[in-house]
Amino acid sequence: MKFKGQSIISIRDMEKEALLKIIETADAVKRGGHKGCLEGKVVSTAFFEPSTRTRFSFASATQYMGGKVIGFAGTASTSVTKGESLVDTIKTISGYCDVIVIRHPVEGAARLASEAATVPVINAGDGANQHPTQTFLDLFTMSERFRDLSKIRVGFLGDLKYGRTVHSLAYALALFRAPMVFIAPEILSMPGYLLEEIREMGSETRQFEALCDIDVSLDVLYVTRIQKERFGDMQEYERVAGTYRVTPETVRALTEGVRIMHPLPRVDEIDVEVDAMENAIYFEQAHNGIPVRQAILGLVMGTIS
Amino acid sequence: MKFKGQSIISIRDMEKEALLKIIETADAVKRGGHKGCLEGKVVSTAFFEPSTRTRFSFASATQYMGGKVIGFAGTASTSVTKGESLVDTIKTISGYCDVIVIRHPVEGAARLASEAATVPVINAGDGANQHPTQTFLDLFTMSERFRDLSKIRVGFLGDLKYGRTVHSLAYALALFRAPMVFIAPEILSMPGYLLEEIREMGSETRQFEALCDIDVSLDVLYVTRIQKERFGDMQEYERVAGTYRVTPETVRALTEGVRIMHPLPRVDEIDVEVDAMENAIYFEQAHNGIPVRQAILGLVMGTIS
Amino acid sequence: MKFKGQSIISIRDMEKEALLKIIETADAVKRGGHKGCLEGKVVSTAFFEPSTRTRFSFASATQYMGGKVIGFAGTASTSVTKGESLVDTIKTISGYCDVIVIRHPVEGAARLASEAATVPVINAGDGANQHPTQTFLDLFTMSERFRDLSKIRVGFLGDLKYGRTVHSLAYALALFRAPMVFIAPEILSMPGYLLEEIREMGSETRQFEALCDIDVSLDVLYVTRIQKERFGDMQEYERVAGTYRVTPETVRALTEGVRIMHPLPRVDEIDVEVDAMENAIYFEQAHNGIPVRQAILGLVMGTIS
Repeated sequence: MKFKGQSIISIRDMEKEALLKIIETADAVKRGGHKGCLEGKVVSTAFFEPSTRTRFSFASATQYMGGKVIGFAGTASTSVTKGESLVDTIKTISGYCDVIVIRHPVEGAARLASEAATVPVINAGDGANQHPTQTFLDLFTMSERFRDLSKIRVGFLGDLKYGRTVHSLAYALALFRAPMVFIAPEILSMPGYLLEEIREMGSETRQFEALCDIDVSLDVLYVTRIQKERFGDMQEYERVAGTYRVTPETVRALTEGVRIMHPLPRVDEIDVEVDAMENAIYFEQAHNGIPVRQAILGLVMGTIS
Repeated sequence: MKFKGQSIISIRDMEKEALLKIIETADAVKRGGHKGCLEGKVVSTAFFEPSTRTRFSFASATQYMGGKVIGFAGTASTSVTKGESLVDTIKTISGYCDVIVIRHPVEGAARLASEAATVPVINAGDGANQHPTQTFLDLFTMSERFRDLSKIRVGFLGDLKYGRTVHSLAYALALFRAPMVFIAPEILSMPGYLLEEIREMGSETRQFEALCDIDVSLDVLYVTRIQKERFGDMQEYERVAGTYRVTPETVRALTEGVRIMHPLPRVDEIDVEVDAMENAIYFEQAHNGIPVRQAILGLVMGTIS
Repeated sequence: MKFKGQSIISIRDMEKEALLKIIETADAVKRGGHKGCLEGKVVSTAFFEPSTRTRFSFASATQYMGGKVIGFAGTASTSVTKGESLVDTIKTISGYCDVIVIRHPVEGAARLASEAATVPVINAGDGANQHPTQTFLDLFTMSERFRDLSKIRVGFLGDLKYGRTVHSLAYALALFRAPMVFIAPEILSMPGYLLEEIREMGSETRQFEALCDIDVSLDVLYVTRIQKERFGDMQEYERVAGTYRVTPETVRALTEGVRIMHPLPRVDEIDVEVDAMENAIYFEQAHNGIPVRQAILGLVMGTIS
């Protein structure tokens, strides 16, 4: 994959080599490389729905690298309220910047935007669909701890049915043929088609209904939120959410040295007491958004090659 | 007109020479001149109502020229909600920046702001009244295609009764004594006082009710939106809006080489199939907002003379 | 007090020497010193409730000094709407910037944030509690006119019961043992515990119910808003608000040369005709927010020592 001028829309457009290139570049950036590589560049953050974390991360990444940011958050103050199409909005913004970072509530919106734009588009989340830079920073964080991504075993915990970050990360790990473990209540388990795809790509997979049932070692436990809204029955929710809550005891019962990751924001699926444990690396993971996004921005703008 | 330290409030404060100076400066800027002329300057975008396009355009213009931006959009997060007067808000902001770009829903607000401010104020739209930088970029876009603005014949189509951009642009073209054609349903036709004024300034004018009736050649067709809200009767709206919709067929029936312009955002008054035609220059027109606003900012701050 | 790496949460954490250091630094900055001292730094403005004035002031201060800004205003577009705790939000943002400027509706929020953050936190207002940089700029403005803060006599007018700025400023002046005068209707008079504390710190205090009763000279009259919401009875409010309104006549009846200050925004507690009088320095006071905040930012980031 040649990055310069390319849009970054879906993890499914990427090959293993591209992911390795991103990780390697992020690593160089984190060590102080490519300083000022966005000098003179303007990045648009076009956020059609809220996401402080991601918007801040892109804005900060850009500015530490010498670039500038223009942006909006929410549609209340955009021409969209006047009935303008996404294509027209993107065509117009294309003339104001060097790259567009888009977040949109509708699946496929980022792809559409990339077709309308005359500058690269980076998908920062389109509905339940894709959020590729989250996956990049997840992989990068893992690669910092475990050099060889093909040998790492990740356990995914929580809502595996709807979780966009889980689906993307699992797909990415499958590109490396990494073994995976899925732990979820039956009604929130990994979609069958995805499990099958991952297996066909060469990953060994296991499924469990509870953390205590796992009989293999884990390098990483990747926790996600179980959302109330997924349950018709509140009693069922209470029962499930409690079972999947990660506490210091849960962590101590797992493989020694297991790393706990989470895409954040967290509500209460990880007890705050876990934060102080060496196993917890979710804030570090979030902070890795900076070098990873700097790497991506530099690559698509061609100032890093 | 001396630009340094001046506010830009209304096209009616401008003379032909000032407009030519702006066009000439924008042209130099677009060719790469005056680089970094906003270095060390801070521009406030004080947007009391939404307008992504204009706000983005000013923010981008500023940052590509080395300047910085502070701003707000919407009044929800301003002191206005605490009952502060516009004058006090502007007096305060004056101490925080080198120029204020204001957008406000109330006619005359920009003028009032310019009287309170101790820095230049640029009107980015005050209600149905004025939006002078839109007119500058319209003129600049025309001047790129047709060197002599006094010889160009523009046809205005759509809502000519309420359209602020139409009124300002027609007035500006009248300063050049350019001939003009107005095409609108009777209930949305050019106000009589304005027509008379334009004629007295030396422009030849013609009026038509339909595009197909025109019997003169056009260099530019300037299209504007016909807003539903203007009609009491929805059937009447449907009939009218359909008639004034620009399609590839409409364009082909006009003078060969006619340029189609639009202040954007567009809803459906221009068919998206027109976008691909060479005649369509409305996105280019929008993008010209960058050099034109860079020229204006540099001129009023005195870093371009 | 060592400033580098420190959070600025409450005026009650400060000693006289620290305040003098801030004033001295702001003075140097205002005279053109410490240029570019925020180069390469990123400041987060995390505003959980609206405040254009303060946010603009910090953003402008940062950018004129060469720094960059990322920020949000209001919680509508933040992860807070997804149920994230303040601690998690702050821990995450810590990784994106060099300093966090926080405004939050809840008392104590800034202190909590400073404990979670790995970068310095500056309190830009936490509910009715503290807003220390307002006090710094108040003191700095006074020090520009009256060299020795221990000799200045300030009269506080308006809502002295609930006014956060009054409480902080009075406390700060008490560190200098400056004499103070409090003018308020009985139901809005200074809290007894605070009066007592100020006296114990060595300040001479006087209380009056009306401006016309004052029998001592004033160097500064510090006016604050009387909020309708504080009154159960609207008639009582009308009577009181009228009495405490500052007009040119009020000013002329006071000590010659008295300076009128106000934290702004003002509604109608100072007649706009006062603005033109030499006594009025409230806009200058607001503008002093720039050098004062630049001084604070430089000090806590260690680029000014």
